[in-house]
Amino acid sequence: MKTDPRDALRVALAPRSIAVIGASENPNKIGGRPIAYLSRFGFRGEVYPINPARDTVQGVRAYSGLAALPAVPDVAVVAVPGQLAVDAVAECAAAGVKLAIVMASGFGETGDPAAKAQELAMVASARAAGMRMVGPNSQGLANFGNGAVPNFSTMFVDTPAKDGPVGIISQSGAMSVIPYGLLRARGVGVRHAHATGNDADITVCELATAVVEDPDLKLLLLYLEGLPDPHNLAEAARIARRRNLPIVVLKSGRSQAGAEAARSHTGSLATEDRVVDAFLEDQGIWRVRTTAEMVDMAELYLKGWTPKGRRLVAISNSGAVCVMTADAATDAGMPLAPLSDATQSELRTILPGFATTRNPVDITAALLSNSNLFGAILPVIAKDPAADAFFIGVAVAGAGYDVEAFARDGAAFAADTGKPLVVAASQPAVAERFEAHGVSVFATEAQAIRALGQYVSHAERLRAAQAADPPPPARRAPPAATRMLDEAASLDLLAARGVPVVQPDHG
Amino acid sequence: MKTDPRDALRVALAPRSIAVIGASENPNKIGGRPIAYLSRFGFRGEVYPINPARDTVQGVRAYSGLAALPAVPDVAVVAVPGQLAVDAVAECAAAGVKLAIVMASGFGETGDPAAKAQELAMVASARAAGMRMVGPNSQGLANFGNGAVPNFSTMFVDTPAKDGPVGIISQSGAMSVIPYGLLRARGVGVRHAHATGNDADITVCELATAVVEDPDLKLLLLYLEGLPDPHNLAEAARIARRRNLPIVVLKSGRSQAGAEAARSHTGSLATEDRVVDAFLEDQGIWRVRTTAEMVDMAELYLKGWTPKGRRLVAISNSGAVCVMTADAATDAGMPLAPLSDATQSELRTILPGFATTRNPVDITAALLSNSNLFGAILPVIAKDPAADAFFIGVAVAGAGYDVEAFARDGAAFAADTGKPLVVAASQPAVAERFEAHGVSVFATEAQAIRALGQYVSHAERLRAAQAADPPPPARRAPPAATRMLDEAASLDLLAARGVPVVQPDHG
Repeated sequence: MKTDPRDALRVALAPRSIAVIGASENPNKIGGRPIAYLSRFGFRGEVYPINPARDTVQGVRAYSGLAALPAVPDVAVVAVPGQLAVDAVAECAAAGVKLAIVMASGFGETGDPAAKAQELAMVASARAAGMRMVGPNSQGLANFGNGAVPNFSTMFVDTPAKDGPVGIISQSGAMSVIPYGLLRARGVGVRHAHATGNDADITVCELATAVVEDPDLKLLLLYLEGLPDPHNLAEAARIARRRNLPIVVLKSGRSQAGAEAARSHTGSLATEDRVVDAFLEDQGIWRVRTTAEMVDMAELYLKGWTPKGRRLVAISNSGAVCVMTADAATDAGMPLAPLSDATQSELRTILPGFATTRNPVDITAALLSNSNLFGAILPVIAKDPAADAFFIGVAVAGAGYDVEAFARDGAAFAADTGKPLVVAASQPAVAERFEAHGVSVFATEAQAIRALGQYVSHAERLRAAQAADPPPPARRAPPAATRMLDEAASLDLLAARGVPVVQPDHG
Repeated sequence: MKTDPRDALRVALAPRSIAVIGASENPNKIGGRPIAYLSRFGFRGEVYPINPARDTVQGVRAYSGLAALPAVPDVAVVAVPGQLAVDAVAECAAAGVKLAIVMASGFGETGDPAAKAQELAMVASARAAGMRMVGPNSQGLANFGNGAVPNFSTMFVDTPAKDGPVGIISQSGAMSVIPYGLLRARGVGVRHAHATGNDADITVCELATAVVEDPDLKLLLLYLEGLPDPHNLAEAARIARRRNLPIVVLKSGRSQAGAEAARSHTGSLATEDRVVDAFLEDQGIWRVRTTAEMVDMAELYLKGWTPKGRRLVAISNSGAVCVMTADAATDAGMPLAPLSDATQSELRTILPGFATTRNPVDITAALLSNSNLFGAILPVIAKDPAADAFFIGVAVAGAGYDVEAFARDGAAFAADTGKPLVVAASQPAVAERFEAHGVSVFATEAQAIRALGQYVSHAERLRAAQAADPPPPARRAPPAATRMLDEAASLDLLAARGVPVVQPDHG
């Protein structure tokens, strides 16, 4: 019985059973980690360690081989090396496994023709049986929504998992978990952290077409070294646009040296960089150049804002931060909004004479003498219609300042305006107070405003791509099918005729 | 008796006695902080709180006015507002105070002609008596080498001070302490953190001419909004070049919006940005655009390296980090060094077949199975003459890895080669191990390599400026003076004739 290829992608994200070929008693070995993680992260399906030398592996009943299993597993993890892996894939395919995740390295990525031939043999035996394959050279998949974490990354040992609205898919194991770790350190929950390796069969982009269907996702991050299947990325982007789900891509190998290194890593071939840029722009996808840009911006997507424009109002207790903010706003293409005369008059009644009531608003060190200044001016500024977004720079605070009040007032201000707000505070104790109130904090104004500018730019790009999308076809109601439309198809039909609808999968 | 203006600058850094006019019992008030800090940071000179309403201030005997003091103080802090500050400056000048630090705001920075006139009156009364003045609108000076911290910044309450080889001078209070806080968070010691305010008399650049004479300093950071006295910066740079002391400048107000904000902050006038760039380059000074660049790079100056060139060798356990490193190296103008055939052959005997022995060297996830790979390849790479600098990206480590060995091996490698090394490790537990061994760690490869590129570029620029310097004149031995030259003058004379000498003030 052949399986449906789309079904295999969904099985990759939510398998009912997972076999681990080459299961190890040592939870720090490649064949041991998946067993440990499936237990630790609460996977509710069946786990079948396969190790002919043991009766149990990490306390779980072990089996001598695939043939000895009580049922055909949905997924088989292949954690044996070289020709053993090739043979295991063939065996899985013959047994009716839906998806093999091949962790072994040493195939197409080496550039060695014999190793590449082994990789092609794995793909061939999988395809012949309708089995799909992740890898080889894959660190594994991870879905923290259901505990399906057939993965050997050490990152999940050190960094506590928290399910959340971010998904990461990467060819590279490291780049599936470095953003994960940095986001978790900022308190952001991550559901998906998948590493596809050499992408000999299932690619990052194809897996993305399934992940974007997760209704809880609010942001999808992709790391790519090559782009061999742009049609899959376009398909993922199309589904994501309908759900208003933003996709951010870090496509490395931008430089000649980087492209050469990518050939050694995942065997990826260089694509003309400008072509990649243009393609991603058309799809409403944002491209970042560094991990920091990917991670800094991510938080802002989770706030539920609908940015209206680019005009920024900046407030600080430091004139220097105001000046550097103006520079950073210019760099980020976020012009400073002109505050109205009425706003400025009202600010003058509150602030000392040596403060600046124009934008950027400099409260000055007078804040040290009067902690109320901050809370007093925010409602005045909130009323001014010129601003599309806000920046607050708490240059220095701590002893003698009511930092808790600043954070509370800042959060209330953000909630009142409904507009994007970013804060810069280099002092950890100050940053923590704002974060506790749900405000995004960066160490410096340049980082905060760069992230805000990227976020607003992406929102604009996504809207433009959505506007260019054709109305969704009534594809769920083909003429030969039932005349009763299901909810999704009904809404598609209405939307296609210009009726505003709430899509059931908006999440 | 008039004081020598140069003497006043040295007194600013090492006063024997400090009076605080407007001394407050509350250590969180502007007039209270200096008293608290002078005690807390171990200032050994005399402290004279001046407060006509109290007998003691924070446990220190207080005086009713300047005239009541047992001696004329070297320095007077003016922490009273408005016209009271103007009067206090005049009184200090008349009494023979060498330096007044005016903390009060509301003068030239407001743009109000009457307030500007008050500022000019302060300068006039100071100059008439040969007194020098810092401020107005100054947060104060701070020398953690001798506890002379007449300063009201809250930062020093929250962030423990540690004397060290970095100096910061800033017009802005915030930008005297934000870099301080970020550097201290990285464990770097900071000696000087001076905020000069409106620079009505002593400017950042003039104060720099004195700070660069501190023999313990290895790096000087300046924050400027205007550059009204480039001759002082040139003089500071000239002294610094002779000592091989690098100066890094963040000159804000780059953009039109920033220049307008700077006018409101310190009343600084815009200077054509390209002119600033060219001037700084001629002086061997490096210009950064953001606080992060200033702080990230600072650590590298303290390692005592003498970078020979720009060719980078990169090593990681992640292929993706290798690819992104190649991109980042291209961005930073740090070409990847070609490893010799001999090096690559030797690496092949150590690493698994699927690893990459070209530069960037990808150890791969095989490191999880064999923690010795890292320590085994470093000595091989250290022997290759092609490299000028190194990058190690520890993408993921932790449980199952011998991180302590990686850090120890990395530090030994850096010591053996004597060449610059930066590390990227996003996991705090990994970063801490490397830092404990004295290695500079960044969260991502892009940050590490950008900082390295800036550092190497600055070293090149400094060498070029040094090469263009005229030989030092034998200025310490004028014809009318004694025929016996002191050590410094003797060395100057020898150096002027091309004899290599070790300058006594090289620190």
